[in-house]
Amino acid sequence: MSDTNAARPAPQRSVTLSWWGDAADGRLRLLDQTLLPAEEREIDCDSVETVREAIRSLRVRGAPAIGVAAAYGVVLGLQDVADGDRESFSRRFDEVSDILASSRPTAVNLFTALSRMRQVLESHADLPSGEMLARLLDEARAIESEDRRMCAAIGRFGAELLSDHQGVLTHCNAGGLATAGDGTALSVIFAAAAEGKHLHVYADETRPLLQGSRLTTWELMRRDIPVTLICDSAAGWVMKQKLVQAVVTGADRIAANGDAANKIGTYSVALLARAHEIPFYIAAPSSTFDLTLPAGDGIPIEERAAEEITRGFGRQTAPDDVETFNPAFDVTPAELITAIITERGLIRPVTTQTVREVLGP
Amino acid sequence: MSDTNAARPAPQRSVTLSWWGDAADGRLRLLDQTLLPAEEREIDCDSVETVREAIRSLRVRGAPAIGVAAAYGVVLGLQDVADGDRESFSRRFDEVSDILASSRPTAVNLFTALSRMRQVLESHADLPSGEMLARLLDEARAIESEDRRMCAAIGRFGAELLSDHQGVLTHCNAGGLATAGDGTALSVIFAAAAEGKHLHVYADETRPLLQGSRLTTWELMRRDIPVTLICDSAAGWVMKQKLVQAVVTGADRIAANGDAANKIGTYSVALLARAHEIPFYIAAPSSTFDLTLPAGDGIPIEERAAEEITRGFGRQTAPDDVETFNPAFDVTPAELITAIITERGLIRPVTTQTVREVLGP
Repeated sequence: MSDTNAARPAPQRSVTLSWWGDAADGRLRLLDQTLLPAEEREIDCDSVETVREAIRSLRVRGAPAIGVAAAYGVVLGLQDVADGDRESFSRRFDEVSDILASSRPTAVNLFTALSRMRQVLESHADLPSGEMLARLLDEARAIESEDRRMCAAIGRFGAELLSDHQGVLTHCNAGGLATAGDGTALSVIFAAAAEGKHLHVYADETRPLLQGSRLTTWELMRRDIPVTLICDSAAGWVMKQKLVQAVVTGADRIAANGDAANKIGTYSVALLARAHEIPFYIAAPSSTFDLTLPAGDGIPIEERAAEEITRGFGRQTAPDDVETFNPAFDVTPAELITAIITERGLIRPVTTQTVREVLGP
Repeated sequence: MSDTNAARPAPQRSVTLSWWGDAADGRLRLLDQTLLPAEEREIDCDSVETVREAIRSLRVRGAPAIGVAAAYGVVLGLQDVADGDRESFSRRFDEVSDILASSRPTAVNLFTALSRMRQVLESHADLPSGEMLARLLDEARAIESEDRRMCAAIGRFGAELLSDHQGVLTHCNAGGLATAGDGTALSVIFAAAAEGKHLHVYADETRPLLQGSRLTTWELMRRDIPVTLICDSAAGWVMKQKLVQAVVTGADRIAANGDAANKIGTYSVALLARAHEIPFYIAAPSSTFDLTLPAGDGIPIEERAAEEITRGFGRQTAPDDVETFNPAFDVTPAELITAIITERGLIRPVTTQTVREVLGP
């Protein structure tokens, strides 16, 4: 922590991923998140196959970051045919798109990004391949920029909710590592700190996969935000000790009434916050809302493998064949959420009506 | 699970520790709890030094079990001098007592047990060494029996609080592995199951040391009680899904007003239970009460090493030098405790007055 206790500013380029060079021979640089926090190693992807492998192996993760990586992956895959005719170029586009689509078939942002790239391809049928490739790089850069602007806007709207000298609890990782920008929940904290507010973050380790322990603490420490790591079970006691005055988390999917699915444990944190009269905020872009679902009970909850609990880090810590219940997410009812922070503004209080007002028709 | 769904009865001997043979050449057999759940290995202690090592290395753990092990350790340490004069016998008693006292200097039950053994020694100054040794073994057996009776009484009083076909959540391990009997919280579950009630236990894994994952599931599985292991952060969601209708935990120290210190996370579980209108019970022997403390805020909370969180599974899972907050215990206020189950009966509601009524003057 520096003397002034101000947060280190956001880096010029995303730590998560960045493009280096021009369309013809540029490269995509990724931070290999599978090695965090023990090692910070960047990898240079110079082919569509290396991008696919990076997405598939979770070297790059988080829906927005995957979308950006895939867009750049399209450019990489077409560099070899930039001097050829448009027919070969378009045929190769299809191959490249298929390769990337197979990397994480359930990632919505990946398909949105590929579809935007295809639109660019199809709307300029007369351009030579080389110029087309430059246009595609422009589109990939646009997808990245929009993601960064989304994060910044969430930070700006959320920062006003935090006051100087507050403790802030967060759960899981809703940080820059999942986006090309400053993240969602962490963007709020970075923006408030950039305004000169002195915050102290309490990061739940977030079992079973420890995203809070491995990723959130790492992100905060490199930006000079004071952070204390706790076991998930200590969150209530931390609140009882009056160490936190606000909670901010991300969300994976939000229903039309504001019920929000997020990492398992978020619901408990929201209830504990309510019991201690601490405001509970969710930070998420408008793309997280699924307005086809009237309420949270329609959100399917993925159940994950027992091994995440019983052999979390390579060692057996429960009996063979023990039965487990390992939901990846839980749903926090809107009534426990003080406000939802989106890039279009605050939703507060959280109701079907206010969700509609902020997100538009 | 058997067809009748009845729990397997308690074994004739404690799985935790048992004496085999007579005073002159008997042995103390211990289950090596450091190897659980991956391996069930018993060790035979034939000297006071092996008992000290077992206590020090947590091969035997839990305040009541440590007391019983120490009492038998005294007998083992005196076997070599059973044929000698009483003076040598008494001198050796002092040495043996010192060896055992140094094994875990903060374990209250250990000193209570050593003090009881000394009283026996001193109240029969005229007995030959061999007969004295037999008396000491009798006393060690008495300490073990009292512990088993305490567990059984807690089970009996607590069983009436659980109904057929309930889900019961527990946190940490308050089981037979910490006692010579069926434990405290788990004794309630074993007793209710023995009455024919079909229970399903949800066991919090209990970070950072995973006693729930490693020990509680193991104990329940070997007694044929259906058990599901969950991450601590899933407890709220399990309650929301109406999977549990009662919570039972142990306690480490209880103040005169009923405020109860127990493993970190217990306070959160109690609050979550209150929010879901689920009764929250604590099972603990009268020896757990510290009536010199009027309320829970006088209970000191031990803070433990960061490594338990950051390298809990043998692998680094958080950045170097991350700040942690790792309290071993938290305090659940009496108002959140539906009843305290002691070997002398139920304390319900939990107030200074009712504590005094059940525990006596």
